[in-house]
Amino acid sequence: MRALEDRLGAVRALVAPRLQAALADREPRAHLYDLIARALERAGKGLRPSLCIATTRAFGGDEAHAVPSAAALEMLHNAFLVHDDIEDGSERRRDQPAMYVEHGVPLAVNVGDAMQALSLRMLKDNVKVVGPEVAWRIVDEFDHMLMQSLEGQAMELGWVRDNDCSITDDDYLLLVLKKTCWYSFIHPCRIGALIARGPGYDLGRFDRFGFLLGAAFQIQDDVLNLIGDGKKYGKEIGGDLWEGKRTLILSHLFRQVTGTDAARLRDVFAKPRDRRLPREIGWLYELLAQHRSIDFARDAAARLASAALQEMETAYADAPEGEDKDFIRNLVRYTVERSV
Amino acid sequence: MRALEDRLGAVRALVAPRLQAALADREPRAHLYDLIARALERAGKGLRPSLCIATTRAFGGDEAHAVPSAAALEMLHNAFLVHDDIEDGSERRRDQPAMYVEHGVPLAVNVGDAMQALSLRMLKDNVKVVGPEVAWRIVDEFDHMLMQSLEGQAMELGWVRDNDCSITDDDYLLLVLKKTCWYSFIHPCRIGALIARGPGYDLGRFDRFGFLLGAAFQIQDDVLNLIGDGKKYGKEIGGDLWEGKRTLILSHLFRQVTGTDAARLRDVFAKPRDRRLPREIGWLYELLAQHRSIDFARDAAARLASAALQEMETAYADAPEGEDKDFIRNLVRYTVERSV
Repeated sequence: MRALEDRLGAVRALVAPRLQAALADREPRAHLYDLIARALERAGKGLRPSLCIATTRAFGGDEAHAVPSAAALEMLHNAFLVHDDIEDGSERRRDQPAMYVEHGVPLAVNVGDAMQALSLRMLKDNVKVVGPEVAWRIVDEFDHMLMQSLEGQAMELGWVRDNDCSITDDDYLLLVLKKTCWYSFIHPCRIGALIARGPGYDLGRFDRFGFLLGAAFQIQDDVLNLIGDGKKYGKEIGGDLWEGKRTLILSHLFRQVTGTDAARLRDVFAKPRDRRLPREIGWLYELLAQHRSIDFARDAAARLASAALQEMETAYADAPEGEDKDFIRNLVRYTVERSV
Repeated sequence: MRALEDRLGAVRALVAPRLQAALADREPRAHLYDLIARALERAGKGLRPSLCIATTRAFGGDEAHAVPSAAALEMLHNAFLVHDDIEDGSERRRDQPAMYVEHGVPLAVNVGDAMQALSLRMLKDNVKVVGPEVAWRIVDEFDHMLMQSLEGQAMELGWVRDNDCSITDDDYLLLVLKKTCWYSFIHPCRIGALIARGPGYDLGRFDRFGFLLGAAFQIQDDVLNLIGDGKKYGKEIGGDLWEGKRTLILSHLFRQVTGTDAARLRDVFAKPRDRRLPREIGWLYELLAQHRSIDFARDAAARLASAALQEMETAYADAPEGEDKDFIRNLVRYTVERSV
């Protein structure tokens, strides 16, 4: 995996100067641009820009043409994280306090808005490298991506707020398609191929692949949230249970429990987050163990991951074998094989 | 003013179907699109779209070409309001509870994000009416508008958070340029003229006019916030004092007070909003009366308004006389002459 890490690092080095350039010489620092810079410094591996750039290269396109879109993807992803933490009440992000915890909700809402706006600014750079028409096609992709993600977020927040204990596995999979798959996997591939092959190329070929990969990724993330190593994971372990977040683990549990357990489950999630008790979270863990709900999710993630690996060969059938296609294969494995 | 109201109504009728179309047949309803629809139903006079469309017409352009941009301006304005209320802790908006009060911060943050994203979607419609290149120039205008507004918001929130009691009239005027003038006045004019005259036309001619008009408008709004008729104004009277919002009224007061009054002033604003007491707000009103700070602001607004009316003739010198230019003149008068 050294080669993979190296290439992820190379993409970050390609994208970071664009992200920084968007913040240079702008005011105010302390209450806006320094906070954006901080959020970006904490950024993760750069999966989304890497997938976008590698797809452009795999389909014979010029890497430089994909950099503005890759930077916009990374900016938007981090914009989402700033607002997600407020919306979910998550206190930690990448092993540090969430931005709203450190700087308050008002500034953090505004910072996320500015990051969303800056991702639009980055799309303007596409005009220079791919011309105004293809640049508008990339805006179409971003538009769909943004709205799907925000609709997914609304579904999830709605389920928590209304304490919906009837969600099914299918409901969950639709949620993941909307809140995770489009922006993290499907659109980075689509945009990468659009840049390489132009607007006539059928981009629908990536939809199934990105869905399978995204679902595997998100379900594994949900599992890690409950039983991962807090230090590696960078968030509070069990945070999803405190937040009442609906996952495949919970949709499985909702289907299994009956009688007094079902009633108590509903009662625990009916409370606001800060009124839940540690012993109630402990009881949730026992219930999950009893019904093997975490095993169920882990198994589903493994099946989806293996389907994604297979589907990748179909999605990228037009791309010649070579280091870029290998990198994407490795990226898929890496994405779904994060150790618990 | 009947003719003015009629034309404002006509613009709303032109823009509303576009706003509604963006929400039609989309899910989820209860936690996203119905909330956006509600926010838009409460919308105000439609000053920004009217100014944009009237400017296109005044400069000989086709009104239909300005409708997507006008709709995007209206959507973005309402997006700002949803997040502003969270950031300022304002409890009421247009005589109803603010969205976050009714539906909670998480959903309201997400709704504002989606409205910002939908304003981008509306800009895509420009490609059909003005072609991809001019459509990108309009994105430039929106990009500048968004970032100036969010930078202004960051300045204002920072002053409140850090309890900055040293802000001057100039600081305040820079704030107003950034948080109000660009998006409410300067860019609607610039975009309107860009659509009519094309990208070669010098748009800088509107900057001074829009600044004077915006400053007059905002200062008058600040005065109304303290001494207006709550029913007409639609927000809590004195809300700015509870929120600690920095206005020209306060920059004047900061300059006037000395000794124990200055220390007490700082102490009152140092408290979080919900720890301020009614008698402290009462004392602030007394202090403002003693130093005639509200009169100072009202006088400044009147001077700025008369300068804006004069400057309008320069900004629109290239536009022939006629009903559109008359409408803009009346709109300027109407904007700055809202009765207290």
